[in-house]
Amino acid sequence: MFRRLDHVGIVVHDLEASIQTYCQQLGFTLLSRVSIPEQLVEAAFLDGGNSTIELIAPTDTTSGTARFLANRGEGTHHVCYEVDDIEAALKTLQERGLRLIDETPRRGVHGLVAFVHPKAAHGVMIELLQKDSHAH
Amino acid sequence: MFRRLDHVGIVVHDLEASIQTYCQQLGFTLLSRVSIPEQLVEAAFLDGGNSTIELIAPTDTTSGTARFLANRGEGTHHVCYEVDDIEAALKTLQERGLRLIDETPRRGVHGLVAFVHPKAAHGVMIELLQKDSHAH
Repeated sequence: MFRRLDHVGIVVHDLEASIQTYCQQLGFTLLSRVSIPEQLVEAAFLDGGNSTIELIAPTDTTSGTARFLANRGEGTHHVCYEVDDIEAALKTLQERGLRLIDETPRRGVHGLVAFVHPKAAHGVMIELLQKDSHAH
Repeated sequence: MFRRLDHVGIVVHDLEASIQTYCQQLGFTLLSRVSIPEQLVEAAFLDGGNSTIELIAPTDTTSGTARFLANRGEGTHHVCYEVDDIEAALKTLQERGLRLIDETPRRGVHGLVAFVHPKAAHGVMIELLQKDSHAH
């Protein structure tokens, strides 16, 4: 069902500072920066070879990302797996009794996305991504 | 410096139960199970397409993994990137002022490994892995 790991999502306080750390110290390459106002976050995607890293910084204090940061501090927030057919994948996961955050896909930066509840996956928030045909 | 993401490490209470969840519900395939007595953990590797998932369960209450589980609960513990030359990578990271957990590599399941301190990478514990030539 899951074709490949697309990216690891990391929540940070300061997007600019985290880009500096990951690029200048750890050696990653910045691919793109995006603002996602409907989620109240800014994000940066970095090249990690076979997958990417998404650095995510909340732009206010009320979003789920901001609450995660306040409760848990900076660190890994989710892992995203690419699927061929997100509707079919969600249907299969529901039939297997898995608790979902999103029962229907919604639009993400690179395609249709949906999140599995971390309680269903031993504390890991798994994002499913069906990429737009032109996304890379 | 980092060639590719090798695996995401997830700490769990019960290895058997987590293998059931990840394989039977989430659709991953079990590749191998290993006991790592010197680290007081048992682990399972699952196929995630371009990378693997390592499920890790402590076998006592004193290891770093057990303390992580007690303090933070189940969830993502580390992300592991493959490097060609782990000695050279550690030297470069130290020269750039990054705080390391392991200043010299030690033997892991699939090759030589070393951990970067999570405080150096915005809360993410990054493992470096130089695979043994026969490892896959």
